[in-house]
Amino acid sequence: MQPIERLVVVGVGLIGGSFAAALRARGLVREVVGVGRSAANLESARSLGIIDASADVAEAVRGADFVLLATPVGQMPAMLEAMRDHLAPHAVVTDGGSTKARVVDLARAALGARIAQFVPGHPIAGSDRSGAAAADARLYHGRRTVLTPVPENTAATIARVREAWSACGAEVVEMTPAQHDATLATMSHLPHVLAYAMMQQVLDDADPATLLDNAGTGFRDFTRLASSQPEMWRDILLSNRDALLAAMDSFDASARRLREAIEQSDAGRLDALFTRSRTERDAWLARFDARAKDGA
Amino acid sequence: MQPIERLVVVGVGLIGGSFAAALRARGLVREVVGVGRSAANLESARSLGIIDASADVAEAVRGADFVLLATPVGQMPAMLEAMRDHLAPHAVVTDGGSTKARVVDLARAALGARIAQFVPGHPIAGSDRSGAAAADARLYHGRRTVLTPVPENTAATIARVREAWSACGAEVVEMTPAQHDATLATMSHLPHVLAYAMMQQVLDDADPATLLDNAGTGFRDFTRLASSQPEMWRDILLSNRDALLAAMDSFDASARRLREAIEQSDAGRLDALFTRSRTERDAWLARFDARAKDGA
Repeated sequence: MQPIERLVVVGVGLIGGSFAAALRARGLVREVVGVGRSAANLESARSLGIIDASADVAEAVRGADFVLLATPVGQMPAMLEAMRDHLAPHAVVTDGGSTKARVVDLARAALGARIAQFVPGHPIAGSDRSGAAAADARLYHGRRTVLTPVPENTAATIARVREAWSACGAEVVEMTPAQHDATLATMSHLPHVLAYAMMQQVLDDADPATLLDNAGTGFRDFTRLASSQPEMWRDILLSNRDALLAAMDSFDASARRLREAIEQSDAGRLDALFTRSRTERDAWLARFDARAKDGA
Repeated sequence: MQPIERLVVVGVGLIGGSFAAALRARGLVREVVGVGRSAANLESARSLGIIDASADVAEAVRGADFVLLATPVGQMPAMLEAMRDHLAPHAVVTDGGSTKARVVDLARAALGARIAQFVPGHPIAGSDRSGAAAADARLYHGRRTVLTPVPENTAATIARVREAWSACGAEVVEMTPAQHDATLATMSHLPHVLAYAMMQQVLDDADPATLLDNAGTGFRDFTRLASSQPEMWRDILLSNRDALLAAMDSFDASARRLREAIEQSDAGRLDALFTRSRTERDAWLARFDARAKDGA
């Protein structure tokens, strides 16, 4: 790809920092300017070589040709409004938000006619670590990035964003915002809610200390998502509320069917369900790991 | 500890194989005899040096001073009955079953007066891998093993089992079977059920392939337990049914409270819940990791 002259990363955390680090590692970006609320985090990003400088958003986007908005969804409207009148006409803007319909609405309201410059996106990669120190140039290797273009985008604008994510090692696909949000509600937002509900159950118990003293690696992995960054996940869940509630209903129905088999001590049915789960999950995991390996 | 002259492992999988491997690595066992249904698995255990020989259960326990029963719970009655009349009077028997009240009932029925020689136990360690090839001499390092002695056990018998697990690197504690089963229902059996329910939801969707293509590492870790060995987990869940159903009710209540906050877009409440989850989980994880490190 044509190198980026001036990349602005708004929110230099795991997602934004890893994007800058990946492009930098490939020599595809000349200058990186960070925007953020925490001076300490920006200083950390600078000392790690992820960004070259920091500025407020209006100043940062002047002369920028590529902007990645990687803040929690709740902060996006203010950031988009602040950058609108300072964006160069040739600049492309994308985001890393985990929900897309709400982000498109917010962006349209904030950017007005400049919505054509904004290509909504979501890299499906994460960690329970956060902040610039968690940035990892290999985070996107073999992972998927979903773009949900708006009708106003030109093919060239979409291609520019696509090639940047591809350069990070991601497999880039396009969906409608509604498709994206329903898919992610089930595959990502729901597991977060269930992990949080599990942690709440333990912490609300009469004796959480005894429970936790007897936890093993299964509990550890099952609840990893409950160590996610609270503000980010509050925003994601609320901005995808309706799709999430539908996914929760579907989970309830699935859990109820399993509960019936347990209540009835239906060993044959449990065997069949568990064997299918294991077989299908192992097959998926082999594909998932192979993709990451190919990308590496 | 006094070395074991002849250790019999009934079920040479992850749990049984790791126990034998750990004691062998420390030079604390002279001979290991494996019992199992799969000739291929026993041959694998022998070629890995985990066992020296294999035999049927009656033959294996003759002259044995230590027996670990590490089969799925459903196979335990037949194994215990088959060994009863061949156990030496000084032999101690323990098990690795994930539920204890049911195992105590089964063992009492199967062993009769020899119940005094049986110390029920549960090492809280696991993996989604199974079979002798998954055995790991370090599996129990810094992990907990719960013993739920029966009134007939002598202090010396309990001490013998305790010191064997300690030698594997485990922290050994005692509980009543009911305490153990309620604790594990919440901390282990429930997460398995929820992971299975999540996989079922995905596989029952109109388009599972698209869902799985957009899964990330969060989904991977959240559903790891759904790759567990089906027969083993069918037996565990059914043998701890009542405690598990109670834990599922408690989870439903916890999930409903979270759902309310999402429905009402109660950002403040979600913030508080998520921050508490992260803080408490991170504190627990630091303790959990430190224990494994000290044990190493």
